[in-house]
Amino acid sequence: MKVLITGIDGYSGWPLALHLLGRGHDVVGVDNFVTRRRVKEVGSWSGTPILPFPKRQQAVHDLLRKELGFHKGDLADYEFVRGVLATERPDAIVHLAEQRSAPYSMIDVHHAVATQVDNLTGTLHLLYAMREVVPDAHLVKMGTMGEYGTPGVDIPEGFFEVEYRGRRDTLPFPRQAGSWYHWSKVFDSGDVMFATRIWKLRTTDVMQGVIYGTRTPEITHDKLLTRFDFDETWGTALNRFIVQAVLGLPLTVYGQGGQTRGFIALEDSMQSLRLAVEHPAEPGQYRVFNQFDAAYSVNQLAEATVRIAAEYRLHPTIDHPPDPRVEAEQHYYQPIHEHLPALGYRAQRTLDDGIRQIFRDVIRFRRRLEARRHVVLPTVNWRVADSKPAIAARLPSFPGPSAPPPTAASPPSSVDPTV
Amino acid sequence: MKVLITGIDGYSGWPLALHLLGRGHDVVGVDNFVTRRRVKEVGSWSGTPILPFPKRQQAVHDLLRKELGFHKGDLADYEFVRGVLATERPDAIVHLAEQRSAPYSMIDVHHAVATQVDNLTGTLHLLYAMREVVPDAHLVKMGTMGEYGTPGVDIPEGFFEVEYRGRRDTLPFPRQAGSWYHWSKVFDSGDVMFATRIWKLRTTDVMQGVIYGTRTPEITHDKLLTRFDFDETWGTALNRFIVQAVLGLPLTVYGQGGQTRGFIALEDSMQSLRLAVEHPAEPGQYRVFNQFDAAYSVNQLAEATVRIAAEYRLHPTIDHPPDPRVEAEQHYYQPIHEHLPALGYRAQRTLDDGIRQIFRDVIRFRRRLEARRHVVLPTVNWRVADSKPAIAARLPSFPGPSAPPPTAASPPSSVDPTV
Repeated sequence: MKVLITGIDGYSGWPLALHLLGRGHDVVGVDNFVTRRRVKEVGSWSGTPILPFPKRQQAVHDLLRKELGFHKGDLADYEFVRGVLATERPDAIVHLAEQRSAPYSMIDVHHAVATQVDNLTGTLHLLYAMREVVPDAHLVKMGTMGEYGTPGVDIPEGFFEVEYRGRRDTLPFPRQAGSWYHWSKVFDSGDVMFATRIWKLRTTDVMQGVIYGTRTPEITHDKLLTRFDFDETWGTALNRFIVQAVLGLPLTVYGQGGQTRGFIALEDSMQSLRLAVEHPAEPGQYRVFNQFDAAYSVNQLAEATVRIAAEYRLHPTIDHPPDPRVEAEQHYYQPIHEHLPALGYRAQRTLDDGIRQIFRDVIRFRRRLEARRHVVLPTVNWRVADSKPAIAARLPSFPGPSAPPPTAASPPSSVDPTV
Repeated sequence: MKVLITGIDGYSGWPLALHLLGRGHDVVGVDNFVTRRRVKEVGSWSGTPILPFPKRQQAVHDLLRKELGFHKGDLADYEFVRGVLATERPDAIVHLAEQRSAPYSMIDVHHAVATQVDNLTGTLHLLYAMREVVPDAHLVKMGTMGEYGTPGVDIPEGFFEVEYRGRRDTLPFPRQAGSWYHWSKVFDSGDVMFATRIWKLRTTDVMQGVIYGTRTPEITHDKLLTRFDFDETWGTALNRFIVQAVLGLPLTVYGQGGQTRGFIALEDSMQSLRLAVEHPAEPGQYRVFNQFDAAYSVNQLAEATVRIAAEYRLHPTIDHPPDPRVEAEQHYYQPIHEHLPALGYRAQRTLDDGIRQIFRDVIRFRRRLEARRHVVLPTVNWRVADSKPAIAARLPSFPGPSAPPPTAASPPSSVDPTV
């Protein structure tokens, strides 16, 4: 099949390209490199060194003997989107090109608006261009388990049958997101569901759990590494914990740490997306997959990190600063995930495997973390309308030896001139 | 109380200003006049002559002996929004300043994106500015009954208690909107609900039924008239039917005509909004009101129009062209509306009253309708990605005597140099 990946330069876009190429699919990508710029905006960079995109393509050619197509451009430009679809005529489109950070969306009004407007516009442009150019293509849209929030009942895959005042109907499961970013994904889900209905498109909406890991089997060389974000704005809690352990800092568990979410290994997320691509939805079918393996609380992640850190002779403590987010710190959480197993999905990786993988890589690139150690503490507060991103100059009281604030003029030493 | 009305130049914004002034409130408005421009864009204008805004203010001064504050500007400009709130410090904000036409949002990709982006951005800007400047003010946000779609169960006021797989919870009622416009209101509801939770704002989300009528008790002079849209893009089905009857055209009922929606008279919608303003939500309370009086099918509207038309010696026939929208033509529809009656709401107007009111006014301004008779047939199709708005030049086969296509260079004769 020919697969178009939007956001191919990102954390999951890149390993997905490698995985699909390895499975014999044709792959072409789109990116505007905004994540590289936005991570820089908050004073951080990828913990793993990642090559500029043309060098990534070259590495694919040299190491995997495959050709990777690419169009640089922005999904905000409808003519660009339509042009790419008309040129490439993909069988499937995996849409990953969205602002993906909840804390980034909560920085201030402008980041909130940019997140929602950019995500919604890109998705609408893709839907219209599909309708116009490739109406039989299959859209695999990256959403998030965070669309559902933490309701007091089980979470079905998109739809549930309810009885209300003596009548029954199958309805979309209500969404109760917890950040402007998560709401932007809810909005996308509405638009994708509606476009599917009126234009008989084929669509799969992936309610993605939190992904962890630095490796897939296709990442056989450092030139093929994907990005690894560890700062408070772009990194996940688990990434932050492991980096804190490596840097000798306490792990910062927000509040009581009972916040529970669904998780999946990078390799297994790629397996899931590939299964979705290889088993397309029917025309007019809007499918929802809850894509995760197991649910863990933040405390469980921190405890697993501490346990596995000891294998690397690291012995971090755990701190409990107040939760900057507005979320339940203890709650019921029971999402259903049956659609992907029905397509043959079997988990290949455990959480412990994933944590070991990350430790090995971040210890190797420890100097890159040292150079950005000021970015691993929370600074964006859900309750404050104008929060500040984690920029060193604004954090004079940060404990421990302080790195010089990074600027374009004085890049810290690094193993690679990349972001 | 001091009330800020965004979209004060619009169909409901204007009579709301008059109604609140009449009740002794201080009123200040905001508008960018985009609806006047967008109605012109599809070749139409208001069936009632409406004054330019400065003359509207003057008429309020002369006829009602009241002062009406006003700031011209766009909610897309955050500094403008914050500045208005900082200057005026309103107790309540009634937010009506949104693109409100489903067919307009369905014209093509650019109208879809503009509708969702503009509506969402304006609401986010208002929420942030409230948080920053007037966190104790009460937001009354105009949504639509169309957010719910037509589920097979009763429609509660925003939230419902459900049992699912043995557990119970109170959840937002699922939204299944039927146009990009209606989805934009769903998105607003998500953002307002979330902002209320994290910042403890006071908010009321009004699921507004279709409003009908040209009159409120405060409209005592033609200089105080509100706009009346009758074209296929901006007018409601009922408005279109009455204008078709007056122009001697058949009434165009889309498909089987079983499509059922909630309706409310203009005067009663103003009563409802005033009750919401005078009984603010508590801090941190997100309230949803289903604001309508009675549900009617399109067939019932057409039959009522035919029946009342006879009082004016008009005898239209009813046509059933294919439905250009994607919607159920026969369906269950049972929304609950108890919150407003609990605040003292009592309907003052019946549907028949409202239809008579409209007939009287549109017969008086018949020449304005004649000059735009080409705009009352459907041209925007939900199934076609790039539909054309109702511009005369694109409709050469329109039956009946054809008016010259309106252009800026050759305005048709009219009773008033207004739009």
